Amino acid sequence: MTSEKFQVYTLIDKKKSGGKLSRDEIKWFIQGFTTNTIPDYQMSAMLMAMFLKGMDVAETAYLTDAMLESGEQVKFPGKNVIDKHSTGGIGDKASFILAPIAAAAGVKVPMIAGRALGHTGGTIDKIEAIKGFKTALDLKTFKEKLLKDNLVLMGQTPEIAPADRLIYALRDVTATIDSIPLITASIMSKKLAEGANGIVFDIKTGTGAFMRDTKSARALGKSLIATSKRFKKKAVALITDMNQPLGNAVGHSNEIIESIETLKGNGPKDLTDLSVSLAAHMIHIAGLERSYPRAEQRAWKVLNDGTALEEFRKLLVSQGGLEAVINDYSLLPQAEDKTMVIAPKSGHLKMFQNEKVGLLLIDLGGGRKTKTDVIDHSVGFYFHKKIGDQIKKGEPLMTIHHHAHQKKLAQEIAISFQKEVITISSLKVKKPRLIMEELT
Amino acid sequence: MTSEKFQVYTLIDKKKSGGKLSRDEIKWFIQGFTTNTIPDYQMSAMLMAMFLKGMDVAETAYLTDAMLESGEQVKFPGKNVIDKHSTGGIGDKASFILAPIAAAAGVKVPMIAGRALGHTGGTIDKIEAIKGFKTALDLKTFKEKLLKDNLVLMGQTPEIAPADRLIYALRDVTATIDSIPLITASIMSKKLAEGANGIVFDIKTGTGAFMRDTKSARALGKSLIATSKRFKKKAVALITDMNQPLGNAVGHSNEIIESIETLKGNGPKDLTDLSVSLAAHMIHIAGLERSYPRAEQRAWKVLNDGTALEEFRKLLVSQGGLEAVINDYSLLPQAEDKTMVIAPKSGHLKMFQNEKVGLLLIDLGGGRKTKTDVIDHSVGFYFHKKIGDQIKKGEPLMTIHHHAHQKKLAQEIAISFQKEVITISSLKVKKPRLIMEELT
Repeated sequence: MTSEKFQVYTLIDKKKSGGKLSRDEIKWFIQGFTTNTIPDYQMSAMLMAMFLKGMDVAETAYLTDAMLESGEQVKFPGKNVIDKHSTGGIGDKASFILAPIAAAAGVKVPMIAGRALGHTGGTIDKIEAIKGFKTALDLKTFKEKLLKDNLVLMGQTPEIAPADRLIYALRDVTATIDSIPLITASIMSKKLAEGANGIVFDIKTGTGAFMRDTKSARALGKSLIATSKRFKKKAVALITDMNQPLGNAVGHSNEIIESIETLKGNGPKDLTDLSVSLAAHMIHIAGLERSYPRAEQRAWKVLNDGTALEEFRKLLVSQGGLEAVINDYSLLPQAEDKTMVIAPKSGHLKMFQNEKVGLLLIDLGGGRKTKTDVIDHSVGFYFHKKIGDQIKKGEPLMTIHHHAHQKKLAQEIAISFQKEVITISSLKVKKPRLIMEELT
Repeated sequence: MTSEKFQVYTLIDKKKSGGKLSRDEIKWFIQGFTTNTIPDYQMSAMLMAMFLKGMDVAETAYLTDAMLESGEQVKFPGKNVIDKHSTGGIGDKASFILAPIAAAAGVKVPMIAGRALGHTGGTIDKIEAIKGFKTALDLKTFKEKLLKDNLVLMGQTPEIAPADRLIYALRDVTATIDSIPLITASIMSKKLAEGANGIVFDIKTGTGAFMRDTKSARALGKSLIATSKRFKKKAVALITDMNQPLGNAVGHSNEIIESIETLKGNGPKDLTDLSVSLAAHMIHIAGLERSYPRAEQRAWKVLNDGTALEEFRKLLVSQGGLEAVINDYSLLPQAEDKTMVIAPKSGHLKMFQNEKVGLLLIDLGGGRKTKTDVIDHSVGFYFHKKIGDQIKKGEPLMTIHHHAHQKKLAQEIAISFQKEVITISSLKVKKPRLIMEELT
């Protein structure tokens, strides 16, 4: 029994017994794990104890800090560096719209985004549908580009919060993902490291979200805002509905097309409204407009006058993406065949088993089953009907975009959509409210 | 994500969410861990989830079974194979007295015992104070000896419940030791594997025990009895006081001497009474007497007529121990110097910080600080006063047995005893009841 082991033991014992860990204790533990002096089997016991016994706002901030300090931290002059974080959902391509809107209004948007996670797609995977777009930038390039332009979009880098990456990998195999303090520290450590002065959170809730119920979404939102405050960052969290896909398009190329269409003013109402609202909060907390309503007016203006689209074009040019896709969607990988899913009966669209939508996309190749799988950007879904819409038997509910050799698979998927995913009710159904709550 | 990992994840997730694991699930998990297909970081997350979410009687039995089945299982003909398990305490040498008593009455006692654990000494470490005594027997020899004689005393063997050893090592460094279902499965898997048909449990509670309060001692006792019943084994549990050392002697040679003296009929009352009571329960559940009072009469008889001492002599001969120690204690290693601890004031002995007694013995060399330390059998303590005794200022409370070069250390330890370990009250103190409860 070395004195080192004794300390690790004592800290696990303290947390397991419901005690509060101090700043120094958490820092020492995370440093020990990151530098390999604390083995993974002790870290996983600690994570399970943190999961089951919880962490208060102070402990969550200490954990955030410890993870943040495990890597490099970027700092920017000025107060207008604002990022957005979504907890992920089906068809969530709002980043491609809100980031150009915010940038067009003068916000610096340091977007370091993720890849697909579980049933949901990833922003970085989606932008890679555009030929040539470089998502692997180093931190120096990231900083230079953001100072020059207003928008950078890149993947995780090894320099940012390496402790988070190590801990996340362990949580992923020990059933300790769905913990509000652990999620909070993971998100916050990365956002703080990239130099954001403020963050707008989009906390999704519903059948396609990690937070199934509003109560846990609200708890996560509150935790993120409390932790932001402790780090003296401005923050807003919207609790938004994820009981159906956001917009109509799902799948990588499909979602890029829908994003560009939205930047051109032709987007679906739910996607457009949510993107404008999130961008407006970014503009507001960046201090560029003195009220939210004025920020929202500004967001609509830059969307409608084409300057947001121009920011998106600049982003493609800056990061090597094929600019011509903006006017020619055939330059994006697109599957050669389509299968229509027909309404099996008349009525009103009542609900989506939305997680299943993501899993069926993975079955089609539009996602990863193992970490080394290559994503097929060309496949996807297009939904013609949304919750509350009236349905006539035999009319198209949605279209599956697939390869010619996937005809049989597509037919099976079509049946899944009819039988498992989409519920049609004989009673009228109210359209759900997209933005359910706002927390500041 | 392989299907294997997915199953491990699902089971951790189930337990962490408060679910009940099935027999097959527990068996699969333990087999996976034992055969190295489930890594220790997933096992430690599962152990913490089991610790914090608990396990019911069925799950505890499944875990016991899975650990039992990880190794060899000995079976004996007849119903009279009965073992005893003590949860450990300071000065606990009852095994050396009760096992010969039970053996003399016709019980077959298959004692596979442990080494020192934390602040408490180990039966195997203590018997090794006797020169030549072999504690490392193989299972074949163990079985042959028990069929021929009535008593075998040996250390853990690698063939018995290897899963328990692997899991215990992980619990030891992840703060998951003090869990009633995990303790139960650990004890029961070993007792069942050694072929016991019945078990008498001595659950110690108080300042020198792992179970500090009667409530948790009772919970452990109930869990052990419930699990014994599921395996159709007879079982009795006594909850006994461990707020002071058992008997007067502490330390390896000291405890062997006191045990032999007790077998000669000259033992301290508490040690003698407890040993007789535990042995009587063994005789009773072995079916050798039809009531507990008759079994107790039998136990007293074989103790008083010297046949129990004769069983102890046979044990030494059978396992190579120096038989002559029985009549010549100078053949045991004994420290050359003594330091008397004097009562700092008059009054009544109120309490012992009993865990500290064990830790001070370790400081003196009579225990291990690290796993590779060699125990010094020659050092120890002898207590002249017990709880409830009247004390006169300046009279000897106890004696420290130490080496000549440890004079300074012994003086420091003497001060610890006066200031920290022993409390003297001006009010009268009631003698504690040794056997507090009996559970069947």
